[in-house]
Amino acid sequence: MAVYTEVTDEALAAFLTLYDIGRVVAFRGIAEGVENSNYALKTTQGDFILTLYEKRVNTADLPWFLGLMEHLAAKGLSCPLPVRGLDGKNLNILAERVAAITTFLPGVWPRRVQAAHCEPLGTALAQLHVDGANFSPTRENALGPSGWRPLLEKSLPRANEILPGLGAELAAAMENILAAWPQDLPRGHIHADLFPDNVFFLDGKISGLIDFYFAATDIYAYDIAICLNAWCFERDFSFNVTKSQALLRGYQAHRALSSAERAALPVLARGAALRFLLTRLYDWLNTPAGALVTPKDPMDYLRRLRFHLSAESEAAYGL
Amino acid sequence: MAVYTEVTDEALAAFLTLYDIGRVVAFRGIAEGVENSNYALKTTQGDFILTLYEKRVNTADLPWFLGLMEHLAAKGLSCPLPVRGLDGKNLNILAERVAAITTFLPGVWPRRVQAAHCEPLGTALAQLHVDGANFSPTRENALGPSGWRPLLEKSLPRANEILPGLGAELAAAMENILAAWPQDLPRGHIHADLFPDNVFFLDGKISGLIDFYFAATDIYAYDIAICLNAWCFERDFSFNVTKSQALLRGYQAHRALSSAERAALPVLARGAALRFLLTRLYDWLNTPAGALVTPKDPMDYLRRLRFHLSAESEAAYGL
Repeated sequence: MAVYTEVTDEALAAFLTLYDIGRVVAFRGIAEGVENSNYALKTTQGDFILTLYEKRVNTADLPWFLGLMEHLAAKGLSCPLPVRGLDGKNLNILAERVAAITTFLPGVWPRRVQAAHCEPLGTALAQLHVDGANFSPTRENALGPSGWRPLLEKSLPRANEILPGLGAELAAAMENILAAWPQDLPRGHIHADLFPDNVFFLDGKISGLIDFYFAATDIYAYDIAICLNAWCFERDFSFNVTKSQALLRGYQAHRALSSAERAALPVLARGAALRFLLTRLYDWLNTPAGALVTPKDPMDYLRRLRFHLSAESEAAYGL
Repeated sequence: MAVYTEVTDEALAAFLTLYDIGRVVAFRGIAEGVENSNYALKTTQGDFILTLYEKRVNTADLPWFLGLMEHLAAKGLSCPLPVRGLDGKNLNILAERVAAITTFLPGVWPRRVQAAHCEPLGTALAQLHVDGANFSPTRENALGPSGWRPLLEKSLPRANEILPGLGAELAAAMENILAAWPQDLPRGHIHADLFPDNVFFLDGKISGLIDFYFAATDIYAYDIAICLNAWCFERDFSFNVTKSQALLRGYQAHRALSSAERAALPVLARGAALRFLLTRLYDWLNTPAGALVTPKDPMDYLRRLRFHLSAESEAAYGL
């Protein structure tokens, strides 16, 4: 939860002259979001979000992210639509950062996930996959399987500080997962970070999906596996199969899964748990004291990983 | 910058039934604010701020703070107006916290203070003092002179960890300031925390004052002294007398200072610097690593204090 970069009122006013969205009425930093600085911007023409991209985002990827958002919005998916400036550009410079203005989406993200959230979530995820299919540029998933080994190697020397034996456990799990990783499943553009705080609901329906800055071209069912990790565990790390059934039912209402995709769910779910475990482990070991963002406990994902390692088939997820 | 308490969508929806402000449309944590949790709340009827009071606020003081805000708003000062529920109460319980909804104020707080901000700031401060005069309940300033000795004593054992000799320097300055503290200056309700992030501007004019949760009944000119500290130093801790002159000119355009008030400015400014130094020192020594809020460097206020100790008369502030 952080705003990393402050924007002076003069710089903001000058920035807004690049756009046809009126003059500033209010400007507040938003607490949500850990990678970039986000501001709620109210102008004489309405509400917008201003995002300043911080150092963890490769600015070379931004045109792809924003292009995907424009493509999905044009298809009718409710996601932030980048606002183009008077010169047609959707990216400009503000406070020495690359910055974009996007439309404001209504809704509230669910602080406590209920089973009733999971079916519409699944449908929205399938819509994203289907609607994204004819966006032709691709982006490799830097946090996909090929990224795990270098990530683990950076943390291995200190992993046992967190839990004795953790390094060996993760290395063994990673080899197991990589050896079984499916090669021929349907692929396309995935969100890759569709956690509850990136999904807005209004009156029980999904009103918007946000934060496409981990999106990539990868296995569709891996995106489902990420959601199984992010939405279907309780606070005590027990797995709620009612939620996973609802999620998969909602997904398949819009895009049916093949038998190969269904059978791959356990290994995909293990991989998804490992992916978040590895980035959290790295952040946990490398975030300086006093940083603006509190690192998330990597152990939460070790518990998820162990569950998925115990899953013998898709039946563990209610299929 | 933090949201300490998460509010579930169910709890928020239930809370809003206590008010006649419509249904929730959007709900985002605000990054600004270090004491309480603040949310930007958009309903079908407009924009509001939802505040959950956290542990540093004494809830017994809240009716006084909100009463003062209602009083000032009724006088025409632009400050958050607490919204009363259907039962007439302006405080309710949400997520196990005392909570209030207030009106949303337009404007942007100045990230980089310019001299042009300081004259309207001074006028707004004088308006606050004059408008507050016939609000009869009072509140003792817990962070006024009587609070400094116990605060310093809590930090003395470790003050020298920050700077060798700091403890002795602060103890000597405190005795000096307390001995010279004025006893008969005009008193009333003061804001006591009118830093730039609590003052919104729009088109060069002040559009709102916020965050009355340190307000108290104390010496009016002490409030000016707090603003001299908060608004008139440059980033290199040099004192900008053009800014202080503008601030004092703006103030006196609405409320003239007596010769006793003017003569007391150096000691009041020393006291104000000491007050923020002491709370920051305490937080610096006592904030656990990984806390949501990064403590502010107490040394910034040592430099201010040293400037004020060198000020021989009100001439140092441009009077």
